[in-house]
Amino acid sequence: MIVIMNPNASARQISDVIARIRAMGYEVHISEGEQQTIIGVIGRGRPLDREQLSTMDGVHDVLAVTHPYKIASRMYHPENTQIPLGAMTVGSKELAIIAGPCSVEGREQIIEIAHAVREAGATALRGGAFKPRTSPYSFQGMGEEGLRYLAEAREQTGLPIVTEVMDPNLVPMVCEYADVLQIGARNMQNYTLLNAVGQSQHTVLLKRGMSSTIEELLMAAEYILSHGNMRVMVCERGIRTYETETRNTFDINAIPAIKSLSHLPVIADPSHGTGKWEYVESVSMAAIAAGADGLILEVHQTPETASSDGRQSLKPERFARLVSRIRKLGEVVDRVVPQPLPEMTRP
Amino acid sequence: MIVIMNPNASARQISDVIARIRAMGYEVHISEGEQQTIIGVIGRGRPLDREQLSTMDGVHDVLAVTHPYKIASRMYHPENTQIPLGAMTVGSKELAIIAGPCSVEGREQIIEIAHAVREAGATALRGGAFKPRTSPYSFQGMGEEGLRYLAEAREQTGLPIVTEVMDPNLVPMVCEYADVLQIGARNMQNYTLLNAVGQSQHTVLLKRGMSSTIEELLMAAEYILSHGNMRVMVCERGIRTYETETRNTFDINAIPAIKSLSHLPVIADPSHGTGKWEYVESVSMAAIAAGADGLILEVHQTPETASSDGRQSLKPERFARLVSRIRKLGEVVDRVVPQPLPEMTRP
Amino acid sequence: MIVIMNPNASARQISDVIARIRAMGYEVHISEGEQQTIIGVIGRGRPLDREQLSTMDGVHDVLAVTHPYKIASRMYHPENTQIPLGAMTVGSKELAIIAGPCSVEGREQIIEIAHAVREAGATALRGGAFKPRTSPYSFQGMGEEGLRYLAEAREQTGLPIVTEVMDPNLVPMVCEYADVLQIGARNMQNYTLLNAVGQSQHTVLLKRGMSSTIEELLMAAEYILSHGNMRVMVCERGIRTYETETRNTFDINAIPAIKSLSHLPVIADPSHGTGKWEYVESVSMAAIAAGADGLILEVHQTPETASSDGRQSLKPERFARLVSRIRKLGEVVDRVVPQPLPEMTRP
Amino acid sequence: MIVIMNPNASARQISDVIARIRAMGYEVHISEGEQQTIIGVIGRGRPLDREQLSTMDGVHDVLAVTHPYKIASRMYHPENTQIPLGAMTVGSKELAIIAGPCSVEGREQIIEIAHAVREAGATALRGGAFKPRTSPYSFQGMGEEGLRYLAEAREQTGLPIVTEVMDPNLVPMVCEYADVLQIGARNMQNYTLLNAVGQSQHTVLLKRGMSSTIEELLMAAEYILSHGNMRVMVCERGIRTYETETRNTFDINAIPAIKSLSHLPVIADPSHGTGKWEYVESVSMAAIAAGADGLILEVHQTPETASSDGRQSLKPERFARLVSRIRKLGEVVDRVVPQPLPEMTRP
Repeated sequence: MIVIMNPNASARQISDVIARIRAMGYEVHISEGEQQTIIGVIGRGRPLDREQLSTMDGVHDVLAVTHPYKIASRMYHPENTQIPLGAMTVGSKELAIIAGPCSVEGREQIIEIAHAVREAGATALRGGAFKPRTSPYSFQGMGEEGLRYLAEAREQTGLPIVTEVMDPNLVPMVCEYADVLQIGARNMQNYTLLNAVGQSQHTVLLKRGMSSTIEELLMAAEYILSHGNMRVMVCERGIRTYETETRNTFDINAIPAIKSLSHLPVIADPSHGTGKWEYVESVSMAAIAAGADGLILEVHQTPETASSDGRQSLKPERFARLVSRIRKLGEVVDRVVPQPLPEMTRP
Repeated sequence: MIVIMNPNASARQISDVIARIRAMGYEVHISEGEQQTIIGVIGRGRPLDREQLSTMDGVHDVLAVTHPYKIASRMYHPENTQIPLGAMTVGSKELAIIAGPCSVEGREQIIEIAHAVREAGATALRGGAFKPRTSPYSFQGMGEEGLRYLAEAREQTGLPIVTEVMDPNLVPMVCEYADVLQIGARNMQNYTLLNAVGQSQHTVLLKRGMSSTIEELLMAAEYILSHGNMRVMVCERGIRTYETETRNTFDINAIPAIKSLSHLPVIADPSHGTGKWEYVESVSMAAIAAGADGLILEVHQTPETASSDGRQSLKPERFARLVSRIRKLGEVVDRVVPQPLPEMTRP
Repeated sequence: MIVIMNPNASARQISDVIARIRAMGYEVHISEGEQQTIIGVIGRGRPLDREQLSTMDGVHDVLAVTHPYKIASRMYHPENTQIPLGAMTVGSKELAIIAGPCSVEGREQIIEIAHAVREAGATALRGGAFKPRTSPYSFQGMGEEGLRYLAEAREQTGLPIVTEVMDPNLVPMVCEYADVLQIGARNMQNYTLLNAVGQSQHTVLLKRGMSSTIEELLMAAEYILSHGNMRVMVCERGIRTYETETRNTFDINAIPAIKSLSHLPVIADPSHGTGKWEYVESVSMAAIAAGADGLILEVHQTPETASSDGRQSLKPERFARLVSRIRKLGEVVDRVVPQPLPEMTRP
Repeated sequence: MIVIMNPNASARQISDVIARIRAMGYEVHISEGEQQTIIGVIGRGRPLDREQLSTMDGVHDVLAVTHPYKIASRMYHPENTQIPLGAMTVGSKELAIIAGPCSVEGREQIIEIAHAVREAGATALRGGAFKPRTSPYSFQGMGEEGLRYLAEAREQTGLPIVTEVMDPNLVPMVCEYADVLQIGARNMQNYTLLNAVGQSQHTVLLKRGMSSTIEELLMAAEYILSHGNMRVMVCERGIRTYETETRNTFDINAIPAIKSLSHLPVIADPSHGTGKWEYVESVSMAAIAAGADGLILEVHQTPETASSDGRQSLKPERFARLVSRIRKLGEVVDRVVPQPLPEMTRP
């Protein structure tokens, strides 16, 4: 951290700042320029609050030099984190293809779509049983019944289950059914929930908040990691901008940026990232070309009757076509889409 | 709702859309233009999903005509909602002045500041016992101990208490100590929490999410209201933009907009809305001039040692000066700052 | 400027950076910490490019310490700049009230509205003769004919004229008719035009670009000021955000921020800042309460037939009511709305 | 266009709206619902202003049904526009690779880099002779001298020249030297300049404004196209968001969106789109995978001494590596990078 004093800061103000820094267990390095004094903070003391220093008399600004996250940082852990998911490993050369409907709408629906996406090449099944909806009057999900259908779909197809949890009290119950706990964009900074999934030691897919910075996303991951739960994947799902042609703006830059700053796997969600199925294929290709470790995609048999997000859902045929294009793209970027496993049972 | 068909939509596609709308219990009005057919949806049927219709074949776009919130709407409830808070009434001519430190840091600190803000004209005391912090390594608040100190401060000063709750499980406990439950910006769409405070029937101060639209804010209020809890104040606290000179961009437009769309009281938070104490006074004046029903302000004896948000905290003298300016401004906009009550006890 | 080296920067990399800085005529102050070396740049040498240093091997980051503008800075010129405009002085205690239609639509229209706004208390007349329109098919303004009508309106009412110039070649011609050259938001970084109005030595009203930072606005002002033309007012007219209830988000924070950073007068444009006439009055009150030096407002006799911006235009009666409220507000913030001058002639 | 009346609109208000629409030469289709009347506007009359209708008494909202651009629309021209550029054709299967320094800094510099990028596979040379700089004190470019060096570089390498023009008066001069006139992001809505390059009938590369919507970009293209100049390529170069890890947020969604809405070729600029050379390769791959027709990239021999944009410039070796990866990627997306032509002369 670096403290920049005002050009007209008094000697007393400067010595007060130095005393405060030393009281926290740090050393200082002082640059006295013609115009202003600059104080470098050196060493490792008690957590030092940038805000506190910035409000002291005579201080012009306080600049952070390093990132505020630690366990999430690639400096801390230079190798890619690898997380087993069903028969494949996320964060390795293998690409995760997580597909399924926005919401579980019924037993037949989810089982049918599970078979369809498995055949097309999916490596995991997504489906929401608890749905965060902007309106209290919208469909809120099937709850535990939906989780049971997901588990049944897994039994038949072998696909691991990715599903959202919204209530910290329900984390243990969702863990019973799901392979991966999804934290939705609206809950990225719901610290009660982050602590609960951290403690669960279950694999987590953490979605970026709709206007969170990359740093805030990694800080939210840090909450989970700080409980010793290292199985965290982060998900770029588009950010909110002024553009109205698309529902969100998929932040393609975030993919190389997160891969450079952190060791955690990065999953791309072009369904929410665009909000229109017509653009999902192009942005999926882009995400993998940019280095993403996998995709999470909304696929629905009949998007026009979907109880949510139909506008951005692919039909199974389109999804199959996309997977085959991703497979071909993998050769160029040194990644592979795992071959589908033999199905477990057939209804 | 209005469905706009593609210029080249087939008769079959058009009749499918009409059948779907009728199946939901609505009537249709059809405009067949030279270029395209437009279908108006009429009447009151089952909740109709705009998304679903928009994914049907031949549909160009579906346009919503009315707002999605109901109980929060001024159409539903034309009179201003009025909420008692201590000796005054929020949403009346009286202006609420909620002041205090970002965090409760200790018994002496909160009691001292409570007396200071009461004397300066505050009508309620704010202070965080549970703090949502971006970093898991930052100070997370004093918890229930902090709540006890707040209650003690109330006993001495008569000021009602506004404090944040983050964990749905802790709502009953926080209700025991606090007069107003604050939902922070990060939790505006934490529906588990919104449902919990809705059920509590306790007064709620709901902060706008850092990049939520006004409509989303009113939809979040609707979650609380839908439990029959009508005591909801909403709070404009600045939104996230590209501007870096200030921490957030205080959305002054939101004040007349919310007052026009909804009957709920609107409180302004210029401390978070600017992030710099130097700008708090100007933006406080602006918010009241624009029609806000009150202010929530961070005040701290020694901002430079505050455990959080010192950069945006006013010292008590500045706060007192601000209240006296607001009092004078009130005469121009037909509002009053209530006179301070006699203090209860003196330590 | 401060250069922060990587933790693992080599001694050679450090000495290269130092050599580069010295080659530009600066001195350095070096802090060698346990983790990393920090180099402060001291003195006044040739313009030093932050970007250049940031790309040298071993450099982690380069941080700017001071603002990049000079003549626009309040450090350079601590007193408020005052600019005569007709019978009043912008930047003094007097508030500028600039009002009129978006576009000049005809001789009778502009003369009639000029009389109406003068009577209501306007201190200057606005009206566009050259209109920047998003569509090449929209009305582009009346051109020089419109300027002649504006000049005639000034003759009759005594109100000085504020009008936009878009083409650097037309600056001399517009100067013949107008008292103030307006640079529109779309042209805030049209440097050819900024240089042309700078050279003209005519008074300029510089609007903030629709997503420009405050710093970029002051840098654009610096272009004009650098030609020795000190008669520059800057205008906050709302910035582009994700919010859709209003056309733009009026950045109320910008008012105290610009007043603190710069000595230039700040004019508020709540018409563009909100995009809806219903919100214009509240935001006008807010802007003056926050310290703005004046308002620029769209006023039209029959907004529903206006050739542009009718949605955000006040009718003359509403405008008169607003001026009388501003007059009353002035007493609280120590400002005055000048009394209307006697009209010159009556048609 | 569709006009939605207020629920309580009077019969008189409704008939006034209808009369206004008919007066403009249109027919109406009326839906009288239980709640409100909806008026569809049918046919082709005089340009109808959505704003005007929206301000009439009794009108709730006016909704546009179609896009406001015409010549730029794919409806108007379903086939991809193809534009010859040196030995290749932009908008065909061939990918344009436009590379070179941000600024022309001298004769040797530009000639050397031209040879380097040609060998690596570039199909055109970029380099700025007129530089739009935020600060009036920054390097503003070499002007016509720079253009002469660019022409000399073309003579030696055969690479066509892409260079920015900022001043409408200089369009004829820049046309003498350049193959493609670049309109920079800051000038996207500088209509005087758009008209000038439209009239020139020269090929134009139009960059998206830093916070322009896709629709505004296509409307700016429409200005150029409306002069009969069909040789327009549009360029996605990143938009301004709240994210600070990158200089801009490259809008990958814009690529499939523009390709779907328009027939114009789309060029991606990952240098400005990220602002950091480390991320340029990933985002370049992404852009081509998403369907872009080419790249424009900043390449500099010694980015650390570049007079501008060094932070985002690739060294020639990195650029060569990127081109070879793009070449391989082309096979997956059915595109080719043209083989380098034999060089013309060697200095």
